[in-house]
Amino acid sequence: MKSDELFALLRRRGVLWPSAEIYGGAQGLYDYGPLGAALKRRVEEAWVAWFPGLSHDYYVIEPAEILPEAVVRASGHLENFTDPEITCEQCHASFRAETVLEKVRPEGVDGLSPTQIAEIVSARQVRCPNCGSAALSVPRSFNLMFGMDFGVTGKERAYLRPETAQGSYLSFARMWDVGRRALPLGIAVVGKAYRNEIAPRQLLFRMRAFTQAELQIFFDPATFPVPFDSVRDERLPVLRVARRSAGEESPELVSAGDLAASGGLPEFYVFHLVHSFRFFRDVLRYPADRIRLFEKSDAERAFYNRIQFDIEVRLESLGGFKELGAVHYRGDYDLRRHSEGSGRDLSVTLSAGTKVLPHVLELTFGVDRNVWALADVHLVKDGERTIWRLPPYLAPVPVGVFPLMAKEHAAYALRLSDDLESQGISNRYDEAGAIGRRYARMDEVGTPFCITVDGRTLEEGPDRDTVTLRDRDTRSQERLRVTDLVARLRPALVAPRPRRA
Amino acid sequence: MKSDELFALLRRRGVLWPSAEIYGGAQGLYDYGPLGAALKRRVEEAWVAWFPGLSHDYYVIEPAEILPEAVVRASGHLENFTDPEITCEQCHASFRAETVLEKVRPEGVDGLSPTQIAEIVSARQVRCPNCGSAALSVPRSFNLMFGMDFGVTGKERAYLRPETAQGSYLSFARMWDVGRRALPLGIAVVGKAYRNEIAPRQLLFRMRAFTQAELQIFFDPATFPVPFDSVRDERLPVLRVARRSAGEESPELVSAGDLAASGGLPEFYVFHLVHSFRFFRDVLRYPADRIRLFEKSDAERAFYNRIQFDIEVRLESLGGFKELGAVHYRGDYDLRRHSEGSGRDLSVTLSAGTKVLPHVLELTFGVDRNVWALADVHLVKDGERTIWRLPPYLAPVPVGVFPLMAKEHAAYALRLSDDLESQGISNRYDEAGAIGRRYARMDEVGTPFCITVDGRTLEEGPDRDTVTLRDRDTRSQERLRVTDLVARLRPALVAPRPRRA
Repeated sequence: MKSDELFALLRRRGVLWPSAEIYGGAQGLYDYGPLGAALKRRVEEAWVAWFPGLSHDYYVIEPAEILPEAVVRASGHLENFTDPEITCEQCHASFRAETVLEKVRPEGVDGLSPTQIAEIVSARQVRCPNCGSAALSVPRSFNLMFGMDFGVTGKERAYLRPETAQGSYLSFARMWDVGRRALPLGIAVVGKAYRNEIAPRQLLFRMRAFTQAELQIFFDPATFPVPFDSVRDERLPVLRVARRSAGEESPELVSAGDLAASGGLPEFYVFHLVHSFRFFRDVLRYPADRIRLFEKSDAERAFYNRIQFDIEVRLESLGGFKELGAVHYRGDYDLRRHSEGSGRDLSVTLSAGTKVLPHVLELTFGVDRNVWALADVHLVKDGERTIWRLPPYLAPVPVGVFPLMAKEHAAYALRLSDDLESQGISNRYDEAGAIGRRYARMDEVGTPFCITVDGRTLEEGPDRDTVTLRDRDTRSQERLRVTDLVARLRPALVAPRPRRA
Repeated sequence: MKSDELFALLRRRGVLWPSAEIYGGAQGLYDYGPLGAALKRRVEEAWVAWFPGLSHDYYVIEPAEILPEAVVRASGHLENFTDPEITCEQCHASFRAETVLEKVRPEGVDGLSPTQIAEIVSARQVRCPNCGSAALSVPRSFNLMFGMDFGVTGKERAYLRPETAQGSYLSFARMWDVGRRALPLGIAVVGKAYRNEIAPRQLLFRMRAFTQAELQIFFDPATFPVPFDSVRDERLPVLRVARRSAGEESPELVSAGDLAASGGLPEFYVFHLVHSFRFFRDVLRYPADRIRLFEKSDAERAFYNRIQFDIEVRLESLGGFKELGAVHYRGDYDLRRHSEGSGRDLSVTLSAGTKVLPHVLELTFGVDRNVWALADVHLVKDGERTIWRLPPYLAPVPVGVFPLMAKEHAAYALRLSDDLESQGISNRYDEAGAIGRRYARMDEVGTPFCITVDGRTLEEGPDRDTVTLRDRDTRSQERLRVTDLVARLRPALVAPRPRRA
């Protein structure tokens, strides 16, 4: 499906829609409806089970979304978190310089100064993408943070966090103090980040308010031991800088062992790249051949990132590979800057007595983008209808409970529905229409299992009652005891966890 | 425990701490550590199971936190969401007028104009609460919303939502369209709200960023049927306006039936008041004799609220009753204002053909305040130690898994820990120190169940292995089969749900 068609479908189903719709919408803001909110929550839970699940020493915290000015000054966001912006003086539309130069400079404008961009605009006689006018402004650096007055004086400024990571860095000292005082120490945050994008577009891919899931792993640069043998033979679809320079866009399969041995990447980095790849392939179940691990070059990545691979997935709706997550080796940049900014030395003394300023390995994940990708990849057409083949533990409504005939079987089915809820199995009761239509409705919202109560259920004795269980993907039905339902359903509804390191 | 002592304890344990602590903190902002974030999440989940669980037609959505200016103009927040503020011209401290007048006017300043407040300050020769100076400024209306530039032009303004409710109102039309097109329809939001408080104080009770859980029930004012008989005999601890006027501060027990029959309250209102009361008593397990349902007078409640009872709980740490939730009957205010503001008629046509502008019943809940209250009420001292007697389904770490002796039993216990996780039972593995100390550590963080693997476990045959299960509150230990663990633990770890209406 094309992007517009998919969005229209999701909107019609109440998965998501433009925020403040009745006021004509608010650019770059979206609301999640009941199905979307449930799906998003389950994606977040699956991420938490997987990434913080990598170690007993990785924790999830919930820091505030508002940052005092001193924090974003130290982090560099106040100065550098900018995007070159160009306004058309004819039609008054604003654009990212990258968009204006899309055709003449497809490799983007990263690393160019406003002056250099202005020269290209002039030399190539670039025109407004909207009205075609040549009256384009000189580019200016536009800071993407939302700033606001904090407190009553009008003198204090604060900012909505442009990334969740800052909360982890700010909390490192406290987490060290209350914890085991050992490295590595992981601090994860799942929450909103905010960017005043110049030109929000591509729906959930450039939003002004969006949800990130990020794990910051603080480690001793001298040693970050990982059980590398457990991943050594995993073959990763990498697209490295050298291969890109040769004009290739498709990845090649390289084993983790080779990436570390001859590929020049540290084992700890490759280990986490493997686990990130596995999350996309095994948990979100994107087909392996639609995933590539895209290495960023020196010019493309932020100056403090020493190594960066984006995890990209090919999306039909957006016509190409899109970044859905990444693994950044950020060195000591973050704790060094906050040590300087706060005046508090964030280096720690290890049990061996050595003092070290921890380095950071950052695993990032765009929650909204992945909600979109889960629709793009798993929503398949079946004639007039659609089936949303979501992994069962991500389904907004994991179970449907139906009486075959409302009149006769409703009481039993309602009791069963409540009973499943009280055992933590979320479900939807539905008695409306023919059973085939009810299956179809649940297929559309991605429900993997439907339970039907029928005449036989009521005839059987206590503890021997049976129901049918219908599988979304195979459409097979089996008869099983009500008392066995929970044990049967539960394993499919818990998101996978990695073997712990 | 006093407030400071309790906060110091929670901070030491990594439950929560001031945000941006290494920068000296940011007034009114707090970060939740691992235990706090987990507790908060479970409180939110319990709220969702209970309130949206009241009906099949109540849904949870996740709308954006940023509101365009047109929305807050229509809702009245741009004009009216203000607090009178007074600055001391000597020491430059800012205060809410209510705080400055605390001693001379304990009933507060609701409904007074800045001029009236200025007259009281002058007549009573009120002085600065901070430095004692008489140089107090004339009060000004200070808008509590955080406003910011939206987009690149500098002309468009947006605001952080001051309450989650607006997202539900804005989504009503879309939810009507995608749903059953019937009333009542409930739309719930759990998420952040933001207020630029003049003087944040009392820790989690007046924050600048905080989490609300709110359910907006849209209903036909002509009929809002509820199964009132199911609550008729519930006796509620109410403190009504008439009783308050007589100087009483303690509630009296009145049955739901009497409140509706002779008390002049609509049955739909009392029904939801009962369910709110039950949530605080039965789910959060605040002792019934510390709860009161505090009716707000005409002068105290917002002008659009027709009926308002705050649910208050007596907290030792804060020396009195504190509002932790409320039930507001808001009439048609919200949809009428947004119909006018957006130009879209938000009235709906019911199946009978009648056209109606729905009324709103709002159930509110302060998540952070309740996290605090759960510490205040359930954290009890036991000699040098503390035991956090949280309801099991709210415990940040519901289960502890220990090997009796690390050397011999660790492998089995680790496998059991992973196995429980894969069945959705969150737990912490601990092998450090004597078993009694491990129990004590788990008692402190509120873990209700500890499982110990010992010599006997390993001796028993497949499927017959047993472990000990220790209960936090009774300290009793029982021996049970590993295969029976999940079935035994699960019911205690799922938050209660109400009988559905």
